[in-house]
Amino acid sequence: MNVEIITIGDELLIGQVIDTNSAWMGQHLGEEGFRVIWRTTVGDVEEDMLEAFNRAMQRADIVLITGGIGPTNDDITKKTLCKYFGCGMHFSDEVFDNIQRIFNRSNRKMNELTRNQALVPDNCTIIQNRVGTAPCTWFERDNRILVSMPGVPSEMKWLMSNEITPRLKTRFNQNLFIRHQTCWVAGFTESALAIKLTDFEKQLPSFIKLAYLPQPGLIRLRLSAYTENEEEAIVSISEQREKLHAILAGNILVEEDKAIEVQIGDILRDKQLHMGTAESCTGGHIAGMITSVAGSSDYFVGGIISYSNEVKHRILGVSEESLSTYGAVSKEVVEQMVVGATRVLGCDCAVATSGIAGPGGGTEAKPVGTVWIAAKLKEKVVSECFHFGTIRDQNIQRASNTALLMLLKVLEEE
Amino acid sequence: MNVEIITIGDELLIGQVIDTNSAWMGQHLGEEGFRVIWRTTVGDVEEDMLEAFNRAMQRADIVLITGGIGPTNDDITKKTLCKYFGCGMHFSDEVFDNIQRIFNRSNRKMNELTRNQALVPDNCTIIQNRVGTAPCTWFERDNRILVSMPGVPSEMKWLMSNEITPRLKTRFNQNLFIRHQTCWVAGFTESALAIKLTDFEKQLPSFIKLAYLPQPGLIRLRLSAYTENEEEAIVSISEQREKLHAILAGNILVEEDKAIEVQIGDILRDKQLHMGTAESCTGGHIAGMITSVAGSSDYFVGGIISYSNEVKHRILGVSEESLSTYGAVSKEVVEQMVVGATRVLGCDCAVATSGIAGPGGGTEAKPVGTVWIAAKLKEKVVSECFHFGTIRDQNIQRASNTALLMLLKVLEEE
Repeated sequence: MNVEIITIGDELLIGQVIDTNSAWMGQHLGEEGFRVIWRTTVGDVEEDMLEAFNRAMQRADIVLITGGIGPTNDDITKKTLCKYFGCGMHFSDEVFDNIQRIFNRSNRKMNELTRNQALVPDNCTIIQNRVGTAPCTWFERDNRILVSMPGVPSEMKWLMSNEITPRLKTRFNQNLFIRHQTCWVAGFTESALAIKLTDFEKQLPSFIKLAYLPQPGLIRLRLSAYTENEEEAIVSISEQREKLHAILAGNILVEEDKAIEVQIGDILRDKQLHMGTAESCTGGHIAGMITSVAGSSDYFVGGIISYSNEVKHRILGVSEESLSTYGAVSKEVVEQMVVGATRVLGCDCAVATSGIAGPGGGTEAKPVGTVWIAAKLKEKVVSECFHFGTIRDQNIQRASNTALLMLLKVLEEE
Repeated sequence: MNVEIITIGDELLIGQVIDTNSAWMGQHLGEEGFRVIWRTTVGDVEEDMLEAFNRAMQRADIVLITGGIGPTNDDITKKTLCKYFGCGMHFSDEVFDNIQRIFNRSNRKMNELTRNQALVPDNCTIIQNRVGTAPCTWFERDNRILVSMPGVPSEMKWLMSNEITPRLKTRFNQNLFIRHQTCWVAGFTESALAIKLTDFEKQLPSFIKLAYLPQPGLIRLRLSAYTENEEEAIVSISEQREKLHAILAGNILVEEDKAIEVQIGDILRDKQLHMGTAESCTGGHIAGMITSVAGSSDYFVGGIISYSNEVKHRILGVSEESLSTYGAVSKEVVEQMVVGATRVLGCDCAVATSGIAGPGGGTEAKPVGTVWIAAKLKEKVVSECFHFGTIRDQNIQRASNTALLMLLKVLEEE
């Protein structure tokens, strides 16, 4: 079944908010066998919303809408849906009870605008939003479905997982199976990899697509099977995966579409090892990646963000002589940082970074983007110098990814 | 002038990649006086792309497309544009020279697929991409413009800033002025704030819109003026801002659309103060926010991520007795953490967090989402317990925002 996602809000168009809802929904729906074929974003403008609803209802079996159903005057999605489906509104006691429950739970006082959230369109099914005050509305026309949800990510996710997807699955008796298989490849440019894979691409069955997703220093390769036969999907994608691995062998870094931080966490938990971090130019980003994983306290003990040289010396024990002789961005310093980290944090392995994220701070010998990275596991210390680009946030991300890949390699070699 | 943005790629639809390009473009275009009215995302499917081009060229004066112009077979935007505009392709020596230059710079070897990047559509203007191998193409029809760019964010940004926007401005002799004025408000629910601002909203001139953007514990209020008279835009938005401030006075936390970490950085630099962090449940996220700002090494010395109790004790000096008596998530511990941070890092101020991010680790007395936060400036220490939600990444974000707001308040009160 084909899905179109419509996200509504001026804040999206003017770029004040990044639309993360659509990506989450795309992933979630794909896992459940629904295929997102189109996405539309419009502002809080009646005419544009009507046009978007109209087009989407022609293109897709299911139209999922987020945003524009808050209590304030700039939110007009509900009113516009009534116009589109030619219906009025009525007061729903059931929705009002839910709003009261939410307000009581957080000790807030209800007011007239919140009360209006209980006004719902006539020609739809109301789905209670147990985690917020704006109800979800489910419309049908000509065997096509349109669902309107809040734009608040946590509310949308709760509604999709608990209410909407289960209903869609019951309703459509799903018969398309979607399987993705992703791996991370290093050591190729995108075009060199494509040439290497020319014959492989040619022999792919028609229901399998190959996609290249280049990242800094890495390419994510994705095989996607779309078929009505579940077994066919599973068997052929695993066959193709084997072929791909035979061709690329040593260049495949991560064999699954698992984030590096998850991959590392799994290995550390498995081997009962503990890790720490010593970050300079990445400023806590690596630790943030590691601790974004639930349960990371099982293997992550902590980290030192040694932004200033004094902290490098005082807490991590980097020698003042090395700092003045070689500079903070050097093999000597980053190796002392990683050694210091395992010692002061009391852990088995660690990564360390020291570099120039930019845009300022570069010199001729060490331009912006120069980053020394080290990894340590037990007695083994490895380090390497990288030259990334000129953009600060990209340098921080690249250095963080690279540091974790270095640790992953050391862990896998153990 | 009205703009539609079209982003192309299956990876967007299946949610493997979050579309950050559109938000950046929306912001950038708004600052230059262009108004994004619609956004469309389609997969690498010819039929859908043709339909999207067609609709966009009816709705908007300017259509900006990103994605699908890499060297690999899954990228078909260029071919589809030729079909849409009814033209063929030719080999461009100029583009080829640029590709060679890029390859020489990074010591990579050119191959046939890369060479094909120099094949360009006949009926368009070629804009050289100085930071990548895929050129940008500029088409015109019936006084409407369609521009196709790479989807790689850094290349798109370079092209927009250096080539496309300047040409659009020359071409359209821009006569719409757009000004946004944003402030962050605390202490209201969205609906309570809307009621408080009922009269204010009524008196707004028709060319000014007010929007509410709720965040965890905060509401971003945005005034937007769209007018052909630049002076009118500037004068009225500043008048309305004054009125808003008079009404909301003490509830306005940040008076600009400046991220909290930027705001804090400005104050610290101004007052010549240095800060540090001691993070448990936020796991480096706060330090990551602070160091995402260029030049943050002027005032950020470093941080301790004390995920384990041992690190809290050993590095930050939290007493073992407090840890066992009150638990890690307590007023006593978080205050000792913030005091320890300023001591061991040698800085004037710091924030500390200790909480249960979830989904595991909650108890009846301290459920998931319980977070103690402390801030210290010189001799002053403040701390407070918060109860956020049940979702890990939201809890980490809320705790980080709240910690920085707490520090901001302490800094402003000094």
